[in-house]
Amino acid sequence: MNKLDINARGVYLIAVTPFAEDGSLDLASTDRMVDFYLERGANGLTILGIMGEATKLTAEESRTFTRQVLKRVNGRVPVVVGASSAGFAPMKELTQSVMDMGASGVMIAPASSVRTDEQILAYFDMVNETLGPDVPWVLQDHPVSTGVKMSNSVVLSILKNSLNCVMLKHEDCPGLGKLSAIRAASERGEVKRVAILTGNGGGLFLPEELSRGADGAMTGFVYPEMMVGVCNAHAAGDTERAHDIFDAYLPLARYEQQPVAGLAVRKHILAARGAIASAAVRRPGPKLSAADIADIDRLTRRQIKRLKELGLE
Amino acid sequence: MNKLDINARGVYLIAVTPFAEDGSLDLASTDRMVDFYLERGANGLTILGIMGEATKLTAEESRTFTRQVLKRVNGRVPVVVGASSAGFAPMKELTQSVMDMGASGVMIAPASSVRTDEQILAYFDMVNETLGPDVPWVLQDHPVSTGVKMSNSVVLSILKNSLNCVMLKHEDCPGLGKLSAIRAASERGEVKRVAILTGNGGGLFLPEELSRGADGAMTGFVYPEMMVGVCNAHAAGDTERAHDIFDAYLPLARYEQQPVAGLAVRKHILAARGAIASAAVRRPGPKLSAADIADIDRLTRRQIKRLKELGLE
Amino acid sequence: MNKLDINARGVYLIAVTPFAEDGSLDLASTDRMVDFYLERGANGLTILGIMGEATKLTAEESRTFTRQVLKRVNGRVPVVVGASSAGFAPMKELTQSVMDMGASGVMIAPASSVRTDEQILAYFDMVNETLGPDVPWVLQDHPVSTGVKMSNSVVLSILKNSLNCVMLKHEDCPGLGKLSAIRAASERGEVKRVAILTGNGGGLFLPEELSRGADGAMTGFVYPEMMVGVCNAHAAGDTERAHDIFDAYLPLARYEQQPVAGLAVRKHILAARGAIASAAVRRPGPKLSAADIADIDRLTRRQIKRLKELGLE
Amino acid sequence: MNKLDINARGVYLIAVTPFAEDGSLDLASTDRMVDFYLERGANGLTILGIMGEATKLTAEESRTFTRQVLKRVNGRVPVVVGASSAGFAPMKELTQSVMDMGASGVMIAPASSVRTDEQILAYFDMVNETLGPDVPWVLQDHPVSTGVKMSNSVVLSILKNSLNCVMLKHEDCPGLGKLSAIRAASERGEVKRVAILTGNGGGLFLPEELSRGADGAMTGFVYPEMMVGVCNAHAAGDTERAHDIFDAYLPLARYEQQPVAGLAVRKHILAARGAIASAAVRRPGPKLSAADIADIDRLTRRQIKRLKELGLE
Repeated sequence: MNKLDINARGVYLIAVTPFAEDGSLDLASTDRMVDFYLERGANGLTILGIMGEATKLTAEESRTFTRQVLKRVNGRVPVVVGASSAGFAPMKELTQSVMDMGASGVMIAPASSVRTDEQILAYFDMVNETLGPDVPWVLQDHPVSTGVKMSNSVVLSILKNSLNCVMLKHEDCPGLGKLSAIRAASERGEVKRVAILTGNGGGLFLPEELSRGADGAMTGFVYPEMMVGVCNAHAAGDTERAHDIFDAYLPLARYEQQPVAGLAVRKHILAARGAIASAAVRRPGPKLSAADIADIDRLTRRQIKRLKELGLE
Repeated sequence: MNKLDINARGVYLIAVTPFAEDGSLDLASTDRMVDFYLERGANGLTILGIMGEATKLTAEESRTFTRQVLKRVNGRVPVVVGASSAGFAPMKELTQSVMDMGASGVMIAPASSVRTDEQILAYFDMVNETLGPDVPWVLQDHPVSTGVKMSNSVVLSILKNSLNCVMLKHEDCPGLGKLSAIRAASERGEVKRVAILTGNGGGLFLPEELSRGADGAMTGFVYPEMMVGVCNAHAAGDTERAHDIFDAYLPLARYEQQPVAGLAVRKHILAARGAIASAAVRRPGPKLSAADIADIDRLTRRQIKRLKELGLE
Repeated sequence: MNKLDINARGVYLIAVTPFAEDGSLDLASTDRMVDFYLERGANGLTILGIMGEATKLTAEESRTFTRQVLKRVNGRVPVVVGASSAGFAPMKELTQSVMDMGASGVMIAPASSVRTDEQILAYFDMVNETLGPDVPWVLQDHPVSTGVKMSNSVVLSILKNSLNCVMLKHEDCPGLGKLSAIRAASERGEVKRVAILTGNGGGLFLPEELSRGADGAMTGFVYPEMMVGVCNAHAAGDTERAHDIFDAYLPLARYEQQPVAGLAVRKHILAARGAIASAAVRRPGPKLSAADIADIDRLTRRQIKRLKELGLE
Repeated sequence: MNKLDINARGVYLIAVTPFAEDGSLDLASTDRMVDFYLERGANGLTILGIMGEATKLTAEESRTFTRQVLKRVNGRVPVVVGASSAGFAPMKELTQSVMDMGASGVMIAPASSVRTDEQILAYFDMVNETLGPDVPWVLQDHPVSTGVKMSNSVVLSILKNSLNCVMLKHEDCPGLGKLSAIRAASERGEVKRVAILTGNGGGLFLPEELSRGADGAMTGFVYPEMMVGVCNAHAAGDTERAHDIFDAYLPLARYEQQPVAGLAVRKHILAARGAIASAAVRRPGPKLSAADIADIDRLTRRQIKRLKELGLE
């Protein structure tokens, strides 16, 4: 009843996986984090993604964490689970397991071994067969992490071939032209209109993406109120307001989007905001220096000041 | 009592994972395959490697297959289990699980995310901490699959830092100079002398590698009798004989070493030789055409003829 | 007399190469572009870099363009020429040619074929031998374009080994910790203090980098007044002002930093600002759509408004 | 009059570029090398390829070397010149220059920046436009060096779109299935029948490739008599003889095909055979150790012995 469908929209938070200082799963913080995201207006959650340190979890930990999130969310918003895998048997096992627990759908990126258009299309035919007729899924288009570059026509072919692909997580960069092209194709009736949520650079192009037809954002920036505010202003037709809000958060968002180091920044601020108990990242992972923390403090102070000027805090 | 140590030598077969036509684990064939390898003189087995389609198995299937192999081997030879992983928690879990079942050690390649010397060394410090003081392990140096290039000095530093690293699986290419350099370092007493088994190109440089100081081969060429024969001739001081045997198998070994397609060749011949029931490879995987099979048939006929000429069959 | 040395600082503009609509070199625009950059406070110019489409020029065109730039600059500021090459003979030829014309130094990134610490150090030993004792050079650390990841210790070793390496162009990302580490090493007297100009993400971390000890920026953002303003405010000790200026330009700077597409954005605005006659990019290269141009127009309007609020326009 | 066309066949030698010990071009050895190749039955030459160290030459050196080769060949066989380039202006300049000197055609591989089917096809549209209506060209399909994977259908589309593409240099691996598919398409009349010469692994699959419809080999194995003998036996319908010859040379061919090191092996044997004066390779490049040379000596002795057994020497 809470299955993901093509009408999804708004802000889906890419959740972190909270750990205690000793690196064990922190289930109490998991609950707090869910509350934190939902209180700030999240329309959905996405767990076990790259920024969720999914590959660092055992299969059992993945299930435990998913169960905890689903229990806390309790059906209030859809929960999407990352299920990309180097093999279809593990993909199927994880998918069945989380769907049985009540997940709303899974998110799948292509395996890094595929390269040509033919290989990509064949891969997603196998994905469709693996997931079966009952599991809605999100196509993740993120060349930076997969190494797989999907052209506009390939994405459209996947959408045509995949009855249960209900959403595109758009993270190609540059990606504005691709977004425009995919929307134009559905407007011409060439392909069904799926939901498109964007995560390009952690949301660093959100106002422009909404103007191109995105339905929202799926990203993990540590201030969900930014994405929520931008989407609301855009929905209200106030594009300038959307940009004002975006620009106020941009200096910190940019800092949080540094490759590798970004996750430590995110968890540091989540801990500072009380959403999780510890900023611990499992190894191998980034650590913040005193100078990094000083940068974050300065950017946070400046952000508060700017939000006040805009009447937003 | 059957733990791997630095005195390991001879031929360790990289085992395939036998599947039934429907893609399920074929445990009966697993037993037959173990017998096949051991009857042909294997001094050890290595399972759950790349050519064992490890990433296509669920965690449960990995354990089931490992248990079956260990039960059939029944302590006759050491069994090494591939335990490389994108995360240390899964690596630890799999390692503990297979060591508890009776594996002799695990094999670890660096994660593809590490790049610089410092990162590689830090990574293996974490590997040592993850595996703990009781698990002997094999360092796999295979840049083609990992993307990680380890210089001679980095390999030597890992050996120095790792009490329980007892073997190097040498698969860098070109790699003869590296092999010479590592052996020279242990001869000068700069580093302990670990076992070095080679797998470069599936054993395509075995005679030369033995001359450089390798202790044997860890590879999966479908005629174990080649590696066994070459190692025995070399051990007997008959280098020319070692080359004669090697050369007789080389045309087929070369054909089996084609990237991607090679696994289908290997399983096809294993099935033809009666070692497994089906040549099935899990998707996405290679398939042989009629022309490929005709190639294999011709090469096999020619190999038999040449072996007869050499008095080897 | 105008040779680059370790005391270089401020803003070095990464110049584009202006083309006419038919793709031929536009030397008149080259002069205008030089004036444009210098009038806005550039302390130096860097030509024939990636964003200068260097690989799309013939050897003769490279020389013609360099000659024109040097003639127009006429010694007012140093001019650095990108001379990275897959081979040392072409590197030497280009270097001698441009130094004879009056260039102040060359910039060299490692060849993408080198990987390990040893290979990187050996490569720069050959660079030093190739450039000889009279050519000051800039070490470009840009893993995104080269694929070569240089650890802090490798960069420090290169600086120690290279008498004529007078500047680091810092473009690793995340790179703030590296910047701090290199500065700390020179402060401890372990290595000479070279100039460090930063280009990370086209200057997207400039205020933080200046706080870590950078001496300025070497980047091509189409509003040089941003980098100049930020550097001046920082030099005056007014860090908040530096951030204010930076933040005002950040939304457009971010848009200009899209991979691939960014060059078309840059040339479009340079043409709009009158610095060059045509926004033409040589093929294969990006093109802007009407929607892209609308984005740029909006961001430009908003930037003007924000600069006015800050009393900067 | 000596232009390359779709009827080309036989053995095209990938020529090395001979250097003196001091690294300068050795034009006398260039003549000797041309004679060496032609005396052994080469049907054509290919210069300025990867194994010709093309990227280590200046533009002027490339022209000097080409001129020398063409003068010595004097129209006896076609000469193909590698003209792949990161930019179309340098590609055009080099092409015009060598065609004016009398080259028979150029060879072009895709730029490593292209990835999707659409990008590859667009790239070769630009190649066709760049080369113009009068230059026959060879499509080089070598993913190991370019990183570009071209599916069967993409190769067929390029052949359809390119009036002057007269030859495919087939070096994808595994590549036998692709070869069969391309030949099947021309036999069905879907695309013109171009010449296909193979270079996969330096000719390590030549007998099988001829059976699949290849017209010969374009490779640089230091014993041209192997490729010539295999092609002749195949043409005479004696497949077993083709394999016999191939197998006799395979141990050394395999040794010469080691990545990176292979070029040093090749030049060492060329010098030993008197084809060039020095085995010098320009830096950065491989060097042989005493142990490497001992390997080569052994393999050479064994090869002579085996050829005698076969009545071939």
